[in-house]
This record gives sequence, C-alpha cells and structure tokens, in this order.
Amino acid sequence: MPLFRMDFTISEKMQMTLDLIRTFLAKEVDPLEQTFFRKPFRELLPELGLLRAKVKQMGLWGPQLPEELGGMGLSLVEHGLVSEALGRSPLGHYLFGCQAPDAGNIEILHMFGTEEQKERYLKPLAAGEIRSCFAMTEVNTAGSNPTLLESTAVKDGDEYVLNGHKWYTTGADGASFSIAMMVTNPKASPALRASMFIVPTDNPGFQLMRNIQIMGESGSDYFSHGEVMFQSCRIPKENLLGREGHGFRIAQERLGPGRIHHCMRWLGICGRAFDMLCERANERVITLDGRTLADNDAIQHKVAELYAEIQQARLSVLHAAWMIDNDGATKARDHIAAIKFSVAGTMQRVIDAALQIHGGLGMSDDTILAYLYRHERGARIYDGADEVHKSSLGKRILKDYAKGKR
Amino acid sequence: MPLFRMDFTISEKMQMTLDLIRTFLAKEVDPLEQTFFRKPFRELLPELGLLRAKVKQMGLWGPQLPEELGGMGLSLVEHGLVSEALGRSPLGHYLFGCQAPDAGNIEILHMFGTEEQKERYLKPLAAGEIRSCFAMTEVNTAGSNPTLLESTAVKDGDEYVLNGHKWYTTGADGASFSIAMMVTNPKASPALRASMFIVPTDNPGFQLMRNIQIMGESGSDYFSHGEVMFQSCRIPKENLLGREGHGFRIAQERLGPGRIHHCMRWLGICGRAFDMLCERANERVITLDGRTLADNDAIQHKVAELYAEIQQARLSVLHAAWMIDNDGATKARDHIAAIKFSVAGTMQRVIDAALQIHGGLGMSDDTILAYLYRHERGARIYDGADEVHKSSLGKRILKDYAKGKR
Amino acid sequence: MPLFRMDFTISEKMQMTLDLIRTFLAKEVDPLEQTFFRKPFRELLPELGLLRAKVKQMGLWGPQLPEELGGMGLSLVEHGLVSEALGRSPLGHYLFGCQAPDAGNIEILHMFGTEEQKERYLKPLAAGEIRSCFAMTEVNTAGSNPTLLESTAVKDGDEYVLNGHKWYTTGADGASFSIAMMVTNPKASPALRASMFIVPTDNPGFQLMRNIQIMGESGSDYFSHGEVMFQSCRIPKENLLGREGHGFRIAQERLGPGRIHHCMRWLGICGRAFDMLCERANERVITLDGRTLADNDAIQHKVAELYAEIQQARLSVLHAAWMIDNDGATKARDHIAAIKFSVAGTMQRVIDAALQIHGGLGMSDDTILAYLYRHERGARIYDGADEVHKSSLGKRILKDYAKGKR
Amino acid sequence: MPLFRMDFTISEKMQMTLDLIRTFLAKEVDPLEQTFFRKPFRELLPELGLLRAKVKQMGLWGPQLPEELGGMGLSLVEHGLVSEALGRSPLGHYLFGCQAPDAGNIEILHMFGTEEQKERYLKPLAAGEIRSCFAMTEVNTAGSNPTLLESTAVKDGDEYVLNGHKWYTTGADGASFSIAMMVTNPKASPALRASMFIVPTDNPGFQLMRNIQIMGESGSDYFSHGEVMFQSCRIPKENLLGREGHGFRIAQERLGPGRIHHCMRWLGICGRAFDMLCERANERVITLDGRTLADNDAIQHKVAELYAEIQQARLSVLHAAWMIDNDGATKARDHIAAIKFSVAGTMQRVIDAALQIHGGLGMSDDTILAYLYRHERGARIYDGADEVHKSSLGKRILKDYAKGKR
Repeated sequence: MPLFRMDFTISEKMQMTLDLIRTFLAKEVDPLEQTFFRKPFRELLPELGLLRAKVKQMGLWGPQLPEELGGMGLSLVEHGLVSEALGRSPLGHYLFGCQAPDAGNIEILHMFGTEEQKERYLKPLAAGEIRSCFAMTEVNTAGSNPTLLESTAVKDGDEYVLNGHKWYTTGADGASFSIAMMVTNPKASPALRASMFIVPTDNPGFQLMRNIQIMGESGSDYFSHGEVMFQSCRIPKENLLGREGHGFRIAQERLGPGRIHHCMRWLGICGRAFDMLCERANERVITLDGRTLADNDAIQHKVAELYAEIQQARLSVLHAAWMIDNDGATKARDHIAAIKFSVAGTMQRVIDAALQIHGGLGMSDDTILAYLYRHERGARIYDGADEVHKSSLGKRILKDYAKGKR
Repeated sequence: MPLFRMDFTISEKMQMTLDLIRTFLAKEVDPLEQTFFRKPFRELLPELGLLRAKVKQMGLWGPQLPEELGGMGLSLVEHGLVSEALGRSPLGHYLFGCQAPDAGNIEILHMFGTEEQKERYLKPLAAGEIRSCFAMTEVNTAGSNPTLLESTAVKDGDEYVLNGHKWYTTGADGASFSIAMMVTNPKASPALRASMFIVPTDNPGFQLMRNIQIMGESGSDYFSHGEVMFQSCRIPKENLLGREGHGFRIAQERLGPGRIHHCMRWLGICGRAFDMLCERANERVITLDGRTLADNDAIQHKVAELYAEIQQARLSVLHAAWMIDNDGATKARDHIAAIKFSVAGTMQRVIDAALQIHGGLGMSDDTILAYLYRHERGARIYDGADEVHKSSLGKRILKDYAKGKR
Repeated sequence: MPLFRMDFTISEKMQMTLDLIRTFLAKEVDPLEQTFFRKPFRELLPELGLLRAKVKQMGLWGPQLPEELGGMGLSLVEHGLVSEALGRSPLGHYLFGCQAPDAGNIEILHMFGTEEQKERYLKPLAAGEIRSCFAMTEVNTAGSNPTLLESTAVKDGDEYVLNGHKWYTTGADGASFSIAMMVTNPKASPALRASMFIVPTDNPGFQLMRNIQIMGESGSDYFSHGEVMFQSCRIPKENLLGREGHGFRIAQERLGPGRIHHCMRWLGICGRAFDMLCERANERVITLDGRTLADNDAIQHKVAELYAEIQQARLSVLHAAWMIDNDGATKARDHIAAIKFSVAGTMQRVIDAALQIHGGLGMSDDTILAYLYRHERGARIYDGADEVHKSSLGKRILKDYAKGKR
Repeated sequence: MPLFRMDFTISEKMQMTLDLIRTFLAKEVDPLEQTFFRKPFRELLPELGLLRAKVKQMGLWGPQLPEELGGMGLSLVEHGLVSEALGRSPLGHYLFGCQAPDAGNIEILHMFGTEEQKERYLKPLAAGEIRSCFAMTEVNTAGSNPTLLESTAVKDGDEYVLNGHKWYTTGADGASFSIAMMVTNPKASPALRASMFIVPTDNPGFQLMRNIQIMGESGSDYFSHGEVMFQSCRIPKENLLGREGHGFRIAQERLGPGRIHHCMRWLGICGRAFDMLCERANERVITLDGRTLADNDAIQHKVAELYAEIQQARLSVLHAAWMIDNDGATKARDHIAAIKFSVAGTMQRVIDAALQIHGGLGMSDDTILAYLYRHERGARIYDGADEVHKSSLGKRILKDYAKGKR
C-alpha cells in the first residue's frame, strides 16, 4: 500500500473562500433552520431564492461547476472542502447550486449533452433557474445489480417509448426534467444494456405518483423523493443522452466526484455534530457542585475516539479526492469504494453519540441532531449499500492478491 | 455470580393467552398501521376505541392490573411475555390498557393513593376512560440527578402552590390529570426532597405549552410528549400522593416492573424486526439466476449474531422478572440496571440491521422499520441514559468487590 | 422465539458440591499456578497425581461420568455448573477427570464401544489411569467441511490400514491410545464417509511428529497438541469404534455436551478475569490523593457492560444445557450453535479488558491473564470457527423462515 | 478541524531506499524467523551481527540518526516510512539500528548529553557496538501519573545515590548502561520532580533481578524486559543527563518521534498480517469444488473493512509525522495522542482477523501471527495505555471548546 506522493496544500484564496462560506452560513442560513424543520420546503422557496441571489453576488455559486458554466472551477480537493463547509447546514448545497442530483446531472449534460440539450437543459439548470431529477432506482429490483434493471425504452420511429416504475427519484416534485436510466438493449452485456434519456416532467407519459414518506416526512419540492411512473412515455430520439447503450458508463463518470462531494458533506455534518457534542458536554451540569458531562472520563474517551475517527475519515476522503485529481478515478477506485462505507459509518456514530449526549433534547427537533439522525441514515444505503461496496472492494483486493498485484 | 434457582415455566393458559394476543394483533391491529404512520393519532381514536372494547370483551384488558382493578393479575414474568407480544405493534400497549405512563401511574395510585384519589383518578384510569401523564423531567436540569430538580411545591394553607417547567410529559395532550414530581423540602437529603402531586390538567395554573416535535413529528393525544408549565398552580393538599418527601421513593417502586415492561416491549420489537430482516433476505433477489440476500454469508452471519444476541437479551429480562417476582426488586437491582442498557442496545442494532437490509424501502414509511428506527432511539435515553446506568451499576459492583461481597 | 418453560433450579446438595470445588481449587490448586506457567507440565505430574487422589477421596471425580463409571452422574445443567467452577483454574478439568478430549472419548466409548473396548480402554481412561487423544483435524484440509477429509482406513483382511496426517491432536504426547477419524467409504454421502478407530499409540504405524509450538509453547504431556502421522498403520478390525461409516454421527453425539462443557468452562474463566479486573480497579491508585481506577467512569462503564454480557452469556448456556437435558440435543441445535461463538467472543472481551486494566502486569505471567489471553484465543477456532457456526446457524434460521417455520 | 496544507510527497531516492529495505528483509531476514521463534535471542546474535554489517555496508544503518552520527538524516515522514518497512519483520528495527529504547536514548543523548557523555555512551550506542536500556516504569506505581513516581536520586557530595524498583526495562539483559528516571526534587511541581541519569549496568548498586516472563517467554538479551533494582546505587554527578529536574521535559522530547516510529512499525505489521490474511483466503479451499475462503462474502467484507481502516490509520500517522516535521511536536500534540490508541487498536484487529482466518495454523508458531498476537498486545499498554491517552486527549479537546478555541 504505497503512498509516497500526496500534497493537499491549498491556496490562500481558497482558504478565504471557505471562511466566507462559513460566515455566510452562520449568519444568513442557520437562523432559517428551525423553520426548515417545521414547515414544508416549498414555503421556504422565496426566502431561499433571495439567499441564492446573495450567493451569486458573492461569486460563490456552483463551486463544482466549470467556469464556463458560471461556476468556480475548483479542483476536487477544493470542491471537497467547500462541500464540507456547506455540509454543516442542511440547506448549504441547495443554496450554493451544488445539490444532488442536479450537480451530477449538470456534470453529465456538460460532458455528454448535445449542443441543443445543453442550451435547453444544462444552461438553466446550471443557473439554478430550473431543477432536475434522476430516475434510476426501481421499486422492484435491487439497485446494486444493474443486470436486474427492468425499465425499458424501445425505439419507435423518431421516438423512444419508455416504460418503467422508479422511486427515490430525488426532487422529482417540482423538477422540470428527469434523466432516466432505461434498458435499451436487453441482450447486450450488462455494461451496455441501458441508456440515459432526458424526459421533461410535463410529458403525459411521466407521472409523479407520490412523494415517498421517509422517516415520517413526505417533504415537498427539492426536499422530497418521488415515486414515478413512465407509461408509454414517448420522447423524441434527440432526448437520448450520450450514446445508446452507454447509460452505465455515463453513470460511472459522475460517481467519483459525487462520492467525494457526499463524503465531504458527511464530514461537514460530523464536524457540526461533534461541535455540538463537545459544547453540550461542557454546558450540561450533572451535580450540585457544578461538575459537567465534560468531567466524565467516559465522555472524554468518546470525544477522543470520535476525534480520531473523524480525522482519519477526513484524511481518507481528501486523499481520494487528491488521487482523482492527479491520477484519475480509475486508479483511485479502491479508495473511492472504501470512503463510501467507512465515512458513512463514522457519520452515523458521531450523530448517534451527539444525540445521546443531548438526551431528550437530542430526540426533539429543537436541535438539528434528530433531523440528521433520521435522514442521514440513508447514507449507508444510497449510492450502493455498505454491503455492496464491501463485497466488491473485498473481492477486488483478494483478486489482486491472487494475481500477485499487491 | 450464582444462578442456581430459576424457573420460567408458565402455564398452558398463559400460553393460550399469548397466542390469542398475537392473533388479535395480526388480524385487527396490523391493518391499521399504515394509517397510524400517516394520520394524527387523534383521528384514530374512534377506531381504537372499538378495538379496546374488543380487548375487554376477550378478557385481556390490563394485563398488568391486579384483578381487583379489572385486570389479569399476572406475575411479572407473565406480564413480561404479554408485553413482548404487544410490543410487536406500536399500538399494542395502548389497546390493552398497559401503556406508559398510565400503567405506572395506576401502579402508584393503587399502592399509595387515598381512597378518594382511587375513586376519582385510579378507577377511570384503570378502566381506560381517561388518560394521565407524568411530569418529572425538567427542561433545564439533568434528570439523572434528582438533587438538581428545581420545580417546587410550597404549602400555603390547605393548598400547595406548584411552579415548574417540565417536558417529555408523555401524553399530556388529552390527559385528565398529571402526576407531578415537585421539590417540597429543598434542604432535605436528596432522597427526601420531593413529593408527588395529582394535578388535574384543567387547573388554570397548568399549561401544556406544546407537543414537542420529536424526530419530525409533534404527534397528538396519547402519541405526544408535552412541554408543560406549572405557574402558581394551586391544588388542594388532598392531591398530595403518598407522604410528603416520599416522591423519589414512590418513583422507585414503579421502576422494577416498568423496566421489565419496557425491555420486553423492546424484545417484541426485536422479534418483529428480526422476522422482517429474515423475510426480506429470503425474498430479495440480487442476481439474474435468483440468488437472494439470504445466500450471502455476511447476511447469514448477521442473522446468527442477532439471533444469539436477542436470545441472550430475552433470557436476561425474563431472569430479572423472575427475580423480582421471587426475591423482590431490591435483590434484582443489578439485573434491572443491566437489562436497561443492554436490551436497548440490542434493539437498536436489530432495528438498524433490519432497516439496512430493506435498503430504500427501509428508509420509507412503507414498513414499520423507519418508525422504529427514529422513535425507539429514545430507549437509550428515557428512564435513565445508558451512561447513567452503566456508571451506577459499575460503581455498585466495584464497591461490592471492595467490601468482599462478591 | 418461544421460551415458556425453563427451570434451572438445582439441589442444595449440588450447591454444596460447587462450594466444595471452589474451596479445593482456591486452597490446593491455585498455589500451583505460577509453577504451571513456568515449568513443563510433565514435571508437575507427581503433584497433580496427589491432587487427583484427593479429588477422588472427596467423591468429586468425573462430574460428567455416569455413576456406573465411577462418576457423579450429573445432569447437563449441573455438569455445566461444575465445569464453570473448574474453569477458574487451568488445571481444574484435568484434576477432576473431565478434561477434553478424554471426557468426549469416554462418552463415545461408553455409548458405542464393544465390551472388550470398554474393558481395555474405557475403564482405565475413566479412572484416570491412562490418557487418550482424538485425531480428527488434518493439516491440509479445512476441518469445517467433513467432505474434505483425506485420511483413509482401508480394510485388509482382519485389519484396517490407516494413512493420514493429523494435527491438533490434543495430549497425544503421553496418551495410550488415539481415537482417529478416517475415511472408509470415499464415495458415500458426506455423513457416511468416515469411521472412528481406536489406535494404541505404541503402534509402529502411529507417530507423534512433534508437539506443535503454540503461542510460544510446545507444552508436554497432557498440555500439548500433537502433529501425528498414520503411515500404513495396521490395526485389528476389532478396533473399529461403532459402525463403519458412522464416524461423523458418533462425533455429533459428543458435540452437545462438549459444547456446554466448554462454554461453562469459558464462563468460569470470565468469572475469574472479571474478579481480577474489579479487584485491580479497586486497588490501583492513579492519583496522589488516592483516587483509583474504580473511580473512573470509563472503567465503571466497562465493568457494567461486561457484567451484563457475562450474565447474558451464562443464562444462554444454562438454557441450552437445560434444553438438551429436557428436549434433546437436536431441538437445542440452534442454541448450541449460538453459544459457541457468542460465549467465546464474550470470553475474549473479558480477558482482554482484564489484561488491559492490569497494564504491564497483565502482559507478564505474574498473573494468569496473559496465559488466558494467548491460549484461550483458540476458543474462537476449535470445535468450529466462529465463521462456520455463524454461516450454518444463519442459513438454518433463514431456511426456517422460508418454510414458514418461525 | 482545518487541514489545508499537507504534502507527503517523497523523493525518488527515498522510494528506492524503501524498496532496498524490503528486498533485504525478504531475502536475508525472513528465513531467520522460524529460528527466532524457537531459540533464545542470544543464540541468534552472531548471525544478526553479520546482517547488521550488511546493513551498514548498504548505507542503511540508523535511518533515524542524523548524518553526523552515521545515520541517514531522514525527515520524520521518511523515517516513518522506513519504520513501516522494517516493521514487517520482528527483527527489522534491531538490524537497522533503530530499535527502542536505544533509538530514543540516542536521541536524548544527542540533544542533552555533555561532550563526555556523547563520547562515552552515544558514540558506541549509535554505532551499534553496545546496547542501552531505559528504566522508568515502576513496579508499584501507575506509570500514567508522573506525580506518583517513587524512585529517588539524592545528591551526596559529588555523587547521586539512587534507589528504586523498576520493571519493563526493555533489553536490560546485556545492556551496557541504563538511563534512569528518578525523583530528585520531591516537592517540586509535577513536571520538575524528576531527573534522568546514566547508570552503567556494572554498577554494584544496579541489579537485573530477572527477565520478566511475558506471554510465556522470558526472552534474553535485547528481546527481554527486565525487572531492575537500584539499591544505594552511587553514580558520579557527571552522569546526570540534562538539567536536574528536567527529566520529564526530556522524556517529552522523544515522545513525538517515538510515537511515529511505533505507529509506523505497527502499520508495517498491519501490512504483513493483511497480506497473510488475503493470501490465506485465496488459498484455503473449503468445498470439494474448489471454493475458497475468498469466495465468502463475510471474508470479503472483513477484507474491505480492514483495508479501509489500515488506509485511514496510515494517513493519520503520516499526517502527524508531517505536522511534527513542519509545525513542531507541540502543535501536533492532539494528532500524536490520537494515533497512539487508534493505530494500536487497528493493529490488534488486523492481527486478530488474520489469525482467525488461519485457524489452527494461526494459533501455532508456524506463522508469525501467534507471535504478533501475543507480543504486540502490549501496544495498547506501553507508552501510555489507551485509556490514559483517551482521557487526556478528550479533556484537552473539551477544554479547547470551553475556551472557544475550536
């Protein structure tokens, strides 16, 4: 396991950007949080619109976007650090125009879209004027295995006819279009069976059945996960995104950066929860003579253990980002797999410990912890469940040994 | 650690009762569950009322109640097994009239109430005609340390004047009266500082400020946790429950049985989640040739580990119940402390694993798992956080060793 | 998971026996321990012989033996409790004549031996006049899968000719005979491929190659694990033990009781290590003003957690023993599997924690902890590695669910 | 938790050095290993002497030594990587002249020794002509708390008179001198109570009582841990090392680099054990049709989890080394504390898993795993037990929060 070249040093300008983001979140966004926990997201849209405008004015819009799309053109290490800073707020990524799945959709439209697709879909999306969704996960088949995908797109003259039943289509409610993964060549090899399509959500064959009730909340607009039906959904063949049969390849492209983005967001959450844990320990008096939770050795141990764990997790993600920046995603493959499950696990442990130390307060929505506890539980599931990543990474490592490669 | 006497054998009649309960829940209650996840509890009241009537007709009302109060008069081991059976449904305890905190309130009214108190509060409560709440936990002080309690009751002629700020007063919304723990003798020794009072909720000095939003839900009626204020709340001195200064002693009394009740309820939850885990593993196809999650060794390991853990947890709770039945709660003290944190931990692990294997479905409210995940998280906090029990149990064991008692 | 019948109550006589054993170990055996850690076992034989004589005089020889063999004729629950008491000393089982593998060998000779075999082998073995060993595990094949067994016994006239390479033949050094598992019918179904044979160790075809150096020690006599060769080893056909092809069936018979025996021995070890942990915590001063490790919350937590874990483990083993006593080993199968890996894990954690709290002293052989740490590590491996038991138990449970049996 | 500057890139020359070391160990040292497990270390000395000569010829002697002492003058990051490479062999550090405690003793003699001390003790020590030991840990007091130190040095004219009872004085057997930590100013503040002295082992007041039997082995020469007595041990005042009262300050100095050295050695062990785990999984056939342990999902998961853990551990140590190199040990303090307990834990888990997968073979000394299992257990104890580091790190972090520093 060699690691003899690595440099995470970032520029002073970048450091200033990060400070700016933190200040903005603390001053302008955190005060909105309690409202966010108690009102439908849709009702917050006007206020969020104003904040987005401020972000643009500050020149911080789209940290992940190339400059030509009005973004900051950051490296992945830099974008990772921005994602971490934004992750401290559940509204951060949305306000800065780098929220999933739009960020990923922008990326693939940018790389694989036709000029017309870019004009019509990419431009307004990158500008935050519209939203999109990504319809891949199916209700009835295991997302971990692409050979099981059942939704189909059949060519019929100048059109494709799409049929399928998808869910966990994040933000379908209010989206202008969906990118949909559909089987086009059932008999092709697994990697070449499916294609991606752009489907405007006003297409009569596309239907948002419901916003799935998740952990007690159905959500609305961007903060929702839709169950959608494609029923004899006809779209012009120009809406094919990239080459036919290349759906999984394209999906693969967005995976590396998306992973860094998520893991660093989780680390932002870890940072926030850890801060809360420590502050609560310092404040919570447990005896008449003023002894606090911070005086308890078991709490001190917990703080030390989580500190060590977060530090390690953070280094591993920055390292993976650095590898992608320098050597490409393929070489960083094992690292990208490893951070997915390990950082998600770290986040769950940090949130759980922070909640626990807050006692009853932690169970309530008077702090952010209960929100993080229930909604960030998804991290060990989406983008590949822990088990899937562990199996495939373990298999790959063992094969490398069998081949004498390690 | 001697254990040379123990007999859990139960009667055939009891076994039939348990079967009856299970069948009733499966047929009559489970179909209500999705509605319960999606509608305010208050809207379900009519339907629940009908089901309660059926429970009474079957002679299964009040499994924990002595026969003189119209209950089944079970031993603690037996009641534990009933609690386990009921625990499989989030509506079980409510429907059978043994829900917290009413069950505990009934117990102490029965043991310490005056005849008048019994007539006025206990009778309708035991019959399920009214509900009650228990106001102990304070917003500003650590519940783990009774010497920190700040709410006061000051005698003024024939009345007590109560002032205090409480929360996590379960089911305050819709309750007819509250039992409230208030400091009556601030200078007394810790164990004798506080007293219990019966406070009708229509007293003008009692105010339900809000139903606390917990894990995204404020709830209503019985399924709610209130933040309540006692402001110059005057009650007649006849509303003192038990002797003045005996508040903590009385609270102590309900602890043993309450613990068994909770732990067995948690084991009912474990049983249900474990069933779902296994069934999902058997059903979820992960390859084209029909291999399921159940064919995965890692899943098999998880199933075996959780099975072993649940078995052990269950034996430990039954053992503690048996000890209380036979030797009294004082001798069973260490066992009662141990099951609190260990069984809560087991439940959290089982729920987490069941949710994980359900993937996206597990995050949604289409199954019960997301409900259990977010709301049963409280088990490691209420009735004494894990840390509190571990410290006090550990301390006690170590002291026993120091004294040569073990 | 029903558990509605269970009675662990034991007789007063039994309780007195247990006390007697404990006193004997504390007074007569513990003083030998440091010598045992520093000298070859063989050098201790004279002294151990005297102690065995005392055990016989007290009428405590062979707790697991039926009365007709000069033993105590205990139930499995009772024998389990004796095994726990003996387990506190590494010499306990040997001194009381119930050490593995002799105890198991006695059991199968008693059940399946011919009259002649009983006369010649069983009698002196049960009396402790000779020792035996059990040659099953092979150097080159995975013991977890009996279909891989390679050693063979081929009939040749009135003899069998044995060839094979075995190891972990416990106590081969100094044994009078070995029971050996050999393939007799390579083409039979897995369960019927092998047979058991009695092989006197002075047979010229039997050779003890070495006492395997395990965790730094080769050991000698009973405290050793041999690597043995069977090379054209001819034995009369009368030395077949039980029916040809029934080797695995016979092995199966000794499994249930053997498991209880081991698990309770491990619990004896847990008890001893836990005692040491608590005593050390009480004694070890860590500040000038006399604060000890016992005053540290993190240590208190550890004590509480291990206490809860040991209690649960203990109940689960007694429960399994009780099930075997009452319902037979087949019905108790899942329980027997579960205790193997869960109790072994508990023991490892308890020993590790006790060692840790002893610091440098724990690493030295000045206490028993370092001995337990290194040698009892085997518990997660012998008699089926954790992984093997978890896979098979998990598979069985999942199949039961598929069949609607649970 | 900012981390915006970090560069681990190393030179090509360094990379070649590491390759050279690995090849040397594999070809020249590994073949000695089985002998090392079975014979007293003292008997290996002649052969080891020849290998040391080869190391010197290759110019690889003393990777941690400054060039003026005949070493390689590496940075801490570089030295860390060398320590990792050497850590794969239990003989590595000794053969390259960077074994504890000599490496630390050299460091403090170099920094604080007088010219005469350097001439007499440092020179031959750095050249590997003599060995030294470090007498700090006491038999009767907790090493974690320096205020408890009891051994004394009292000035008497031109001499100091030393009295004390120490143990875990590594390599005392065969050492030419000891550096001893003794209380010189009992009433001074904790940090200024003790001083360091150079004590030749042929001083009549110095006695090696025994080589402590650790995990079954007393060891000899360098591979031993001594219990030593200082009894009216008179040494000239010139043998004071550094200033009187500065003993702990000096000890502090060697802590940072020593920590990196140890943690990277542990990572070398992790690498070796992980390799063995993977190779065993690939080789071990578990079914007739050739399925191996590597085909088992549970093993794949374990491989993936340990891979992720080792990667993270490695990054955290290199990061700490880089911080010491660039910002000094004081600023890196929290990182240095965190890696101690987290990497020791990782190593224990990796070794345990590797041993487990080797089954019976893993318990034997036919591989290195049993050696690592028993002797490297000390890592969680020496240089400060896990608990000590967790408490002090946790306390420090919490205090920083209280001061608003984080």
